[in-house]
Amino acid sequence: MERVPILKIGEILLVSIQLDMSDQTALQLQEDLAERIVATGCHGVIIDITALDIVDSFVGRMLSSIASISKVLDAETVVVGMRPAVAITLVELGLSLNGIRTALNVERGMELVADARADEFPYDDELADGSDDDPETTSSP
Amino acid sequence: MERVPILKIGEILLVSIQLDMSDQTALQLQEDLAERIVATGCHGVIIDITALDIVDSFVGRMLSSIASISKVLDAETVVVGMRPAVAITLVELGLSLNGIRTALNVERGMELVADARADEFPYDDELADGSDDDPETTSSP
Repeated sequence: MERVPILKIGEILLVSIQLDMSDQTALQLQEDLAERIVATGCHGVIIDITALDIVDSFVGRMLSSIASISKVLDAETVVVGMRPAVAITLVELGLSLNGIRTALNVERGMELVADARADEFPYDDELADGSDDDPETTSSP
Repeated sequence: MERVPILKIGEILLVSIQLDMSDQTALQLQEDLAERIVATGCHGVIIDITALDIVDSFVGRMLSSIASISKVLDAETVVVGMRPAVAITLVELGLSLNGIRTALNVERGMELVADARADEFPYDDELADGSDDDPETTSSP
């Protein structure tokens, strides 16, 4: 059975999906990702789908499910590299990627993870260094 | 025909090889990579082979060839994520990955690219900003 590799880059886990996913591969990926999130303490998962010609309801569900699992484990999921044709087909099919953030490429995805993190935990820095910055400026989008 | 996606992360192009490479796919990858190096001006190419069970002479030649092409285009190539079994088989088969640097994972690969760059062009900063800093301080890690 094929396994999709998970690459750790700084605080982020990067998954590049290049194969047509079977049920088995998809389940294995979810399991592997959950384990890696816990093992590494990463706060972001970036899924690259540049190689996919088609995102059908199966792949859509898989992405949603990965996003939900990651969320529970305190990690943001961002899907990057969607082709224009894929986006058009998704809308035509009426598939919505529930709870999934998207970005144009890996670099923007990384920024999105960092921003989402900053929005969610505006007092992180304050707690960490005990400084008394105005929370308003940190938490407003 | 399948195409291996090339991801840009900062100054580095990342390629995760997950498919069994056909001649066509390998040629296409070399071409795509050369184009991306020129288009982005990246100085590093990291090839992740975590997903490969076997590195035979064909894949070995492809990696060597990518490294040579990148070198001509002023980019370092690092192969990362080699499995222990693959390393053992490579040695048993007497295959040497000519001119290819390796690293344990993507993060170390990135460090290697940065270090190689610093070693090769210790005066880069000086030339770039025209300052008259002591070159010793720039080149020492």
